[in-house]
Amino acid sequence: MNTQSFNPDFSHFTCPAPLRDYPHVILGHGGGGTLSHELIEGIFLPAFSNPLLDRLGDSAVLDVAGELAGGGRLAISTDSYVVRPLFFPGGSIGDLAVNGTVNDLAMSGAKPLCLTAGFIIEEGFPVAELGAVVDAMAKAARVAGVRIVTGDTKVVERGHGDGVYINTAGLGVVPPGVAVGAAPIRAGDVVLLSGMIGDHGMAIMSVREGLAFESRIESDTAPLHGLVAAMLEVCPEIRLLRDPTRGGVATSLNEIAGFAACGIEIDEAAVPVHAQVAGACEILGLDPLLVANEGKLLAIVPAEAAERVLTAMRAHEYGRQAVALGRVVEKHPKLVVMRTAVGGTRVIPMPIGEQLPRIC
Amino acid sequence: MNTQSFNPDFSHFTCPAPLRDYPHVILGHGGGGTLSHELIEGIFLPAFSNPLLDRLGDSAVLDVAGELAGGGRLAISTDSYVVRPLFFPGGSIGDLAVNGTVNDLAMSGAKPLCLTAGFIIEEGFPVAELGAVVDAMAKAARVAGVRIVTGDTKVVERGHGDGVYINTAGLGVVPPGVAVGAAPIRAGDVVLLSGMIGDHGMAIMSVREGLAFESRIESDTAPLHGLVAAMLEVCPEIRLLRDPTRGGVATSLNEIAGFAACGIEIDEAAVPVHAQVAGACEILGLDPLLVANEGKLLAIVPAEAAERVLTAMRAHEYGRQAVALGRVVEKHPKLVVMRTAVGGTRVIPMPIGEQLPRIC
Repeated sequence: MNTQSFNPDFSHFTCPAPLRDYPHVILGHGGGGTLSHELIEGIFLPAFSNPLLDRLGDSAVLDVAGELAGGGRLAISTDSYVVRPLFFPGGSIGDLAVNGTVNDLAMSGAKPLCLTAGFIIEEGFPVAELGAVVDAMAKAARVAGVRIVTGDTKVVERGHGDGVYINTAGLGVVPPGVAVGAAPIRAGDVVLLSGMIGDHGMAIMSVREGLAFESRIESDTAPLHGLVAAMLEVCPEIRLLRDPTRGGVATSLNEIAGFAACGIEIDEAAVPVHAQVAGACEILGLDPLLVANEGKLLAIVPAEAAERVLTAMRAHEYGRQAVALGRVVEKHPKLVVMRTAVGGTRVIPMPIGEQLPRIC
Repeated sequence: MNTQSFNPDFSHFTCPAPLRDYPHVILGHGGGGTLSHELIEGIFLPAFSNPLLDRLGDSAVLDVAGELAGGGRLAISTDSYVVRPLFFPGGSIGDLAVNGTVNDLAMSGAKPLCLTAGFIIEEGFPVAELGAVVDAMAKAARVAGVRIVTGDTKVVERGHGDGVYINTAGLGVVPPGVAVGAAPIRAGDVVLLSGMIGDHGMAIMSVREGLAFESRIESDTAPLHGLVAAMLEVCPEIRLLRDPTRGGVATSLNEIAGFAACGIEIDEAAVPVHAQVAGACEILGLDPLLVANEGKLLAIVPAEAAERVLTAMRAHEYGRQAVALGRVVEKHPKLVVMRTAVGGTRVIPMPIGEQLPRIC
């Protein structure tokens, strides 16, 4: 076992425009005056620049008539990000703030168009660290192919925040013919999972707890709309998509079983977990099924399409290790049950409270 | 002078569905499991219920093809709300979270369609107070005619937040033919202001500072899209709209003068301020031009349309005390200058930092 080293370095960050040489955010940066403008022009605009944002209006105006010409609909979503620490192996709050909201849109089958970004910054937060967060967001937005078109910054007094909290809202277009979530879930439908579980949660926890493993556990944060598009191409009848973030796969499956009033059965042997994640979970007494993922999805698909969708998933970079995790059953409605390796069964309950606070 | 009494009472609030009798928010309410669901079903859904929200998907899917059929465009905006105290004379953080974002959309000439809502709640926050905030938001949304269609809740540890922070993002439709901000601002254009300034900021400050006046200063928080629609009806050529929130009228005028590279001249005698607001500003050493408003707008209109627009504004409940505040001039580009009552002039600078922290 080597010691896991993780010391993010912000010394490389240079502010594209001088911020009156303030090394830390002060309350005045949230006042709407000259200091606010300097923060926006020194940090946010250079990172996020695009014609809509650069206008700095109170709102951004988009022409989406073309996107909707074929009868498409809009998807809208929001999430706040309060993860701690702000930087962790495999990503940062900036990556989550983009990918998390992009993925919420993708779960409707939508193609993400743009994001809004709201920052609540604690007085005293290092400007270099804010710059690094913003750069990570900008990079994630480029990778995901979305623009950040409007934003807002507030500064709160020291002790009333925690570095930076980010809210993003996302707007996407659901292509004509896509109707994820519209058809009922039926007994016999197959539950697919796009890859290894628990990576994000255990990447965070191993930093927080100072755990050391031979290979570093990295967050799986990734934008999933490309994977979803590939799946919809081979099976427009996908019944439902969910990204198992907070509360993990167990929570998402219980939500599905609950509102569809069906039973769900999963196979223990099929649950894909990296060895070091399983090890970390064992040390901390956690169940990987309850641990957050930030780059995985669950899909409920008709049985006859399952192989086809699985093949399409495995051909995509974010679905290489996709598996058939289980199936929808008529018995035990609203319950999720796991078939164990030795042939027994156990109920996988909805967790009550918070297993891992501030995970996303 | 009477003592200003302001003691908001939450004892009337009863949670529509029992929240396991937790009187305070705990970290588990942010975990995505059963407690999160109870918070959503006990507090948020009863207040905000509508078919899109009730589905509780990761995103809401809207059909706006009809709204855009005539060639309209979308406006999107976001703001985080960190005002302190959460309840103040004339409103609450819930009112601001709806009206502030609705107004940002309205400043594009957009008709607001829907809002997203993200809550960052501090562990230990009283559930009854959260309920009262949410009820205020729901009421403001009904008054403004917008739906809250999707949301998110995070809980952070005690000492890392401050009761509740709210982010809203708004989506609106800009009607065909409306192009606020598209035409250049020209010397001779008139600056209109929709009413008395400084009410919101001084309502907050008088509670914080325990100031007492004969009549209570109340926040002017209000949704302005109806007023904007009435103005656009008589003058589709409105050059620009701004709501002078953080940093007040002085900041908005400086922003306009800056990016339009024009001079702006305002008349001291025309600046409308309630006597008790002027008094409170004097006691605290504040300039009403720098104090936040939450239900006022500035409009730059062609000179020939000014009287017509002013008449339309005065016929609307949120514009009864509208005035012509000044004009756009060729001289002193990028500067805002006030003609004083005695015939002198003084420059109104952009404020540098934070005059009134946590005002919105």
